[in-house]
Amino acid sequence: MNTKLPNGTIILSSPPSITGAAAVGGKKEAEGPLKEYFSYIAKEGHFGQTTWEKAEMELQKEALQFAVDSDSISLKDIDYIFSGDLLNQCIASSFAHRSTDTAFLGMYGACSTFAEGLGLSALFVNAGYASYAATCVSSHFCSAERQYRFPMEYGGQRPPTAQWTVTGAGCTIIGPSTPDSPHITSVLFGAIVDAGITDANNMGAAMAPAAYDTISKFFEDTHTSPSDYDLILTGDLGEIGKDILIDLFRMENGIDISKNYMDCGVEIYDRKAQDVNSGGSGAGCSASVFSGFIVPEIKKGRWSRVLFAGTGALLSPLSSQQGESIPGICHAVCIN
Amino acid sequence: MNTKLPNGTIILSSPPSITGAAAVGGKKEAEGPLKEYFSYIAKEGHFGQTTWEKAEMELQKEALQFAVDSDSISLKDIDYIFSGDLLNQCIASSFAHRSTDTAFLGMYGACSTFAEGLGLSALFVNAGYASYAATCVSSHFCSAERQYRFPMEYGGQRPPTAQWTVTGAGCTIIGPSTPDSPHITSVLFGAIVDAGITDANNMGAAMAPAAYDTISKFFEDTHTSPSDYDLILTGDLGEIGKDILIDLFRMENGIDISKNYMDCGVEIYDRKAQDVNSGGSGAGCSASVFSGFIVPEIKKGRWSRVLFAGTGALLSPLSSQQGESIPGICHAVCIN
Repeated sequence: MNTKLPNGTIILSSPPSITGAAAVGGKKEAEGPLKEYFSYIAKEGHFGQTTWEKAEMELQKEALQFAVDSDSISLKDIDYIFSGDLLNQCIASSFAHRSTDTAFLGMYGACSTFAEGLGLSALFVNAGYASYAATCVSSHFCSAERQYRFPMEYGGQRPPTAQWTVTGAGCTIIGPSTPDSPHITSVLFGAIVDAGITDANNMGAAMAPAAYDTISKFFEDTHTSPSDYDLILTGDLGEIGKDILIDLFRMENGIDISKNYMDCGVEIYDRKAQDVNSGGSGAGCSASVFSGFIVPEIKKGRWSRVLFAGTGALLSPLSSQQGESIPGICHAVCIN
Repeated sequence: MNTKLPNGTIILSSPPSITGAAAVGGKKEAEGPLKEYFSYIAKEGHFGQTTWEKAEMELQKEALQFAVDSDSISLKDIDYIFSGDLLNQCIASSFAHRSTDTAFLGMYGACSTFAEGLGLSALFVNAGYASYAATCVSSHFCSAERQYRFPMEYGGQRPPTAQWTVTGAGCTIIGPSTPDSPHITSVLFGAIVDAGITDANNMGAAMAPAAYDTISKFFEDTHTSPSDYDLILTGDLGEIGKDILIDLFRMENGIDISKNYMDCGVEIYDRKAQDVNSGGSGAGCSASVFSGFIVPEIKKGRWSRVLFAGTGALLSPLSSQQGESIPGICHAVCIN
């Protein structure tokens, strides 16, 4: 039987394995420190397509195919595709997978979408609902920029707190338990936390309280502390949000999470050389960093126990125009 | 153990019950034949708020509260809220539930979102991941109209194939099995089906092939036929999509589904009196019709075995502008 702990953490009775994973990215991602971890890098932002949105669809298709190939299974073995992106009505996801004849579950959790799908995939395989389930999530700098901010041609300036939307897609496949692949052992889906931040150029500050809420609930549920993990990995808080999260744990709990803590948005770019301000963001950020970099490095033995906490900012341009604050959310998945 | 059938239908080993359900709606919905089934009807479209989007957030909050009240539980008993809507970045859902401190799983499946959540909720309770899970989904005529089509003030004309977006929200709660409540016994999440329809004013035609795909897979998996159900209920195909689905089954399988077949989009309005062309649509359509009308009528004994097949059209204004066709999807949930 699965165990449901007081704060909602689910301890999986039959932990499934991460059986396949891959990431694809764009030119800027290839100039960053994680270049070698992308299965495919596009030379230009259109990926051979006529629009950025169609390019983003291609990113997802490629990520799914590379992940399937890494798993020595075929696309037909996948029972479910959990997928989402940042575009209005999540069109990158639905158009990318319209030819698969595979059950499709669309998600929207902003940049937490990948963690949501990873958790759902693990729960599906654990319960016997699926043999293999894929989570495929993307973002694209140009499609996001023009939808959320300004036309690309405008060349809008960005404050230091802003983050750079990753052009990339990541896909991770959860399958039957195998001894030599990492397992997903527990999942905690988070609640929405609205700390009242209204600056849409400071997503890190909006998401950090949600990350704190979910991670501290997880620690409490599992009676663990940061030193029990080889790596604590947040989604895309960026440099500023990462510092806030470290401060929150220091102030509220008197504990230091900084020793074994990474953030996908900080890792993906070289902030000094690449002019990305607070770091990377976008649903494709944690999707590609987790699938392309973290999974292979766990397999190589670099880390054994990883707590992945994917973060999302649940705003829209319209909600900001209407004076709303920015609710955050964070879903946690523990990998052993 | 749960059984997974060849086309993907999951037969639940411990079928959970529908323990609570409620719908709220607007003025036009109160003029239709289902008026008495709404727990609350707003006198005007703003629901006391300053914008239509904030009004839609209120719709979801009210629907959740009425559903919880109908279940004689409290909001704290709900372990998960599965929620979605049609607004860009699904803001109605995330803002509606930001104060609950309940695990939140955002979904996007256009008008199939409610069926997706209902299926996921049932699978969560069945597996012991949740004691109670709520699915809360909305749409609002005015927020949808200005986002997808024209400013309200423009008064755009609508072709006969067009559908009217429902102003409403529905919430259904899945909980422990109880003898006097209907049970969810099987779930089939559908694949995306793109029949090449490009007319964004004819969603019924775009979604009917997906409904056919999922329902025929379900019949095949379960060795059942239309006569095995007291009611087959599609989401919001409208009058035109409903006729197409009947024709598809007649032509492809030589069977007649029309005898015990209803569509939420056809039921919610009086087409002759209410000027809604092909019928109702929007994510709130099947959400409110199922939660407000179908669940209470099942409880009263009007139907015993119901196959609910929620349908969605996975387009965006931008995908249509870029010349894309309209992919459809359909998720099926069987209630006994």
